[in-house]
Amino acid sequence: MRIAQVAPLFERVPPVTYGGTERVVAYLTDALVELGHDVTLFASGDSVTRARLVAASPRSLRLDTACRDTMAPQIRELELVSRMAHRFDVIHFHTGFLHLPLARHLPAPSLTTMHGRLDLDGLAPLMRDFADAPLVSISNNQRRPYPNQAWSSTIYHGLPPQLLPFRASPDDYVAFIGRISPEKRVDRAIEIARRAGLELRIAAKIDVADREYFAADIAPLLEQPHVHYLGEIGEHEKADLLGGARALLFPIDWPEPFGMVVIEALSCGTPVLAWPEGSVPELLEHGVNGWMVDSIEAAVDALRHVDAIDRHACRATFEKRFTADRMARDYGAVYKRLIDASRRGLEARTA
Amino acid sequence: MRIAQVAPLFERVPPVTYGGTERVVAYLTDALVELGHDVTLFASGDSVTRARLVAASPRSLRLDTACRDTMAPQIRELELVSRMAHRFDVIHFHTGFLHLPLARHLPAPSLTTMHGRLDLDGLAPLMRDFADAPLVSISNNQRRPYPNQAWSSTIYHGLPPQLLPFRASPDDYVAFIGRISPEKRVDRAIEIARRAGLELRIAAKIDVADREYFAADIAPLLEQPHVHYLGEIGEHEKADLLGGARALLFPIDWPEPFGMVVIEALSCGTPVLAWPEGSVPELLEHGVNGWMVDSIEAAVDALRHVDAIDRHACRATFEKRFTADRMARDYGAVYKRLIDASRRGLEARTA
Repeated sequence: MRIAQVAPLFERVPPVTYGGTERVVAYLTDALVELGHDVTLFASGDSVTRARLVAASPRSLRLDTACRDTMAPQIRELELVSRMAHRFDVIHFHTGFLHLPLARHLPAPSLTTMHGRLDLDGLAPLMRDFADAPLVSISNNQRRPYPNQAWSSTIYHGLPPQLLPFRASPDDYVAFIGRISPEKRVDRAIEIARRAGLELRIAAKIDVADREYFAADIAPLLEQPHVHYLGEIGEHEKADLLGGARALLFPIDWPEPFGMVVIEALSCGTPVLAWPEGSVPELLEHGVNGWMVDSIEAAVDALRHVDAIDRHACRATFEKRFTADRMARDYGAVYKRLIDASRRGLEARTA
Repeated sequence: MRIAQVAPLFERVPPVTYGGTERVVAYLTDALVELGHDVTLFASGDSVTRARLVAASPRSLRLDTACRDTMAPQIRELELVSRMAHRFDVIHFHTGFLHLPLARHLPAPSLTTMHGRLDLDGLAPLMRDFADAPLVSISNNQRRPYPNQAWSSTIYHGLPPQLLPFRASPDDYVAFIGRISPEKRVDRAIEIARRAGLELRIAAKIDVADREYFAADIAPLLEQPHVHYLGEIGEHEKADLLGGARALLFPIDWPEPFGMVVIEALSCGTPVLAWPEGSVPELLEHGVNGWMVDSIEAAVDALRHVDAIDRHACRATFEKRFTADRMARDYGAVYKRLIDASRRGLEARTA
């Protein structure tokens, strides 16, 4: 298939550090190339890909401090896609809603993966206008506010299998990875580890919006002797941190549409202790590759029996459900359905 | 003609207080209706118009504090235009660049008025991509960075002739109206009035971005006895303030693409004392309806001979060049050219 992937421009593909959507686009794009597809990636010009790269901006917008108007390159990207659209069998957008008015007019069928939460105010009129636009959800929970959209499928994210290697014997600590923000509840993780008598290693970035919360509510907690705060870490350090952890603590307090770090932990064979919010019940199997709990007490109790989980079972879950190859095959099947439907529609109109 | 006007959604059409683009769209729309055209206005739902209103958002985005995502309604507006496009002979966009990738695909010809300055970084790739998109500039000076775009025309803004009535006998002060910001140079206005021994009345809003500048550089100057700072004023107060002024001081230090307050002053018969930046030399005629100067000394000297300018001549300039009716007729001529060219193109393709 001749496939276009259209990425956001804020981070390069893949991102140097953080950037959930751009990371998924990177893994998907390379896995589609691996499957033998002819893939074109629209992304920032500093992106690194096995596909044909079309640069909609010279650099990722986050790094390009000379770029005052971040809309201009995004509009430009749409125009580039529009001009080349006749060369593709299918166009896969990861750019939110921005492209949807245009996508209807393109000569190739298109698909949009919704990467963000959909339970925010103000989306309803837009979702109604685009009720017939083919969408992919990244968890079934994500689509709950809009059950009647034209959902093509739920496709869970996937990772290259060697990115975060399996490790059979962990060290003696638990880990927290994520943003420092109220809904991620690092405070819960700190309290759980304290009561369980375990060292907690925290790797987390602090967004500008959360600096006040960090200073007032979290910084004092980091003073405790069982807590080690590592700041923001890179991909290689992540493999070490997750692989060495007895468990990943994921005590979230919001409907996270897909917990990327959950499958990163499973890739290392590390079980995940999580609150059952958002996508979590779709990713974890209680007692097999982690635990779903809804209180500090239950969390502490689970960590007392952490060895009851077989790390090979965690990795097996990952290999079965969360590889980039599986993600690419799932998307390939959706692309094929869209292309077939589009051809039937065209035949019906010209018959 | 069946004409669509597509306005930004940040302010209602017309705005309650500030909002340059939405104000121009309001005057143009009503003047086109007056000329007998069938006009549809895409704008926020609180807009007030003689045309058929299509509400892309319930309220203007500035007033709608519940609206967290201001892109969603803008995308929605494009989709509404796209769906109704077949009903129009021409579609006139005032929405920056956002609509340009879509506009090519619509079944009616379209036109875009550039309302902002074009000498900012980062626009060049976009302007190149849309080198063939029909654009209107609001002054010849505005288009200087991109002389080779497909400019359809320069069309100066216009006002309803009774909005700011002529006043033959002013009071004994000079006026400054605008934002308090470094490039508007209210400090120059204060110094000119002081040296000329004249009272200065200032009506100005202070954007959040300019609060520090105001507090540090301007607030102390307002303590002088010849200065009266009125804050932000409404349309009715503007007529009084401008009509009563011996002159409007417009000592700008940036390439303002169109000085709306310049033609507002002329509507009242009030001459304008301006630095010759941006569009100013296209709007003013030195010695006839104002003065162009490039020093405080020259400005003070001009104010010594303020009575040399005939207020009737100022109003005559306004009536000849800057009414909404003239603006609507100019746009009507451009629409007709676009429609004719589009029909010829269609005939050529189907012949």
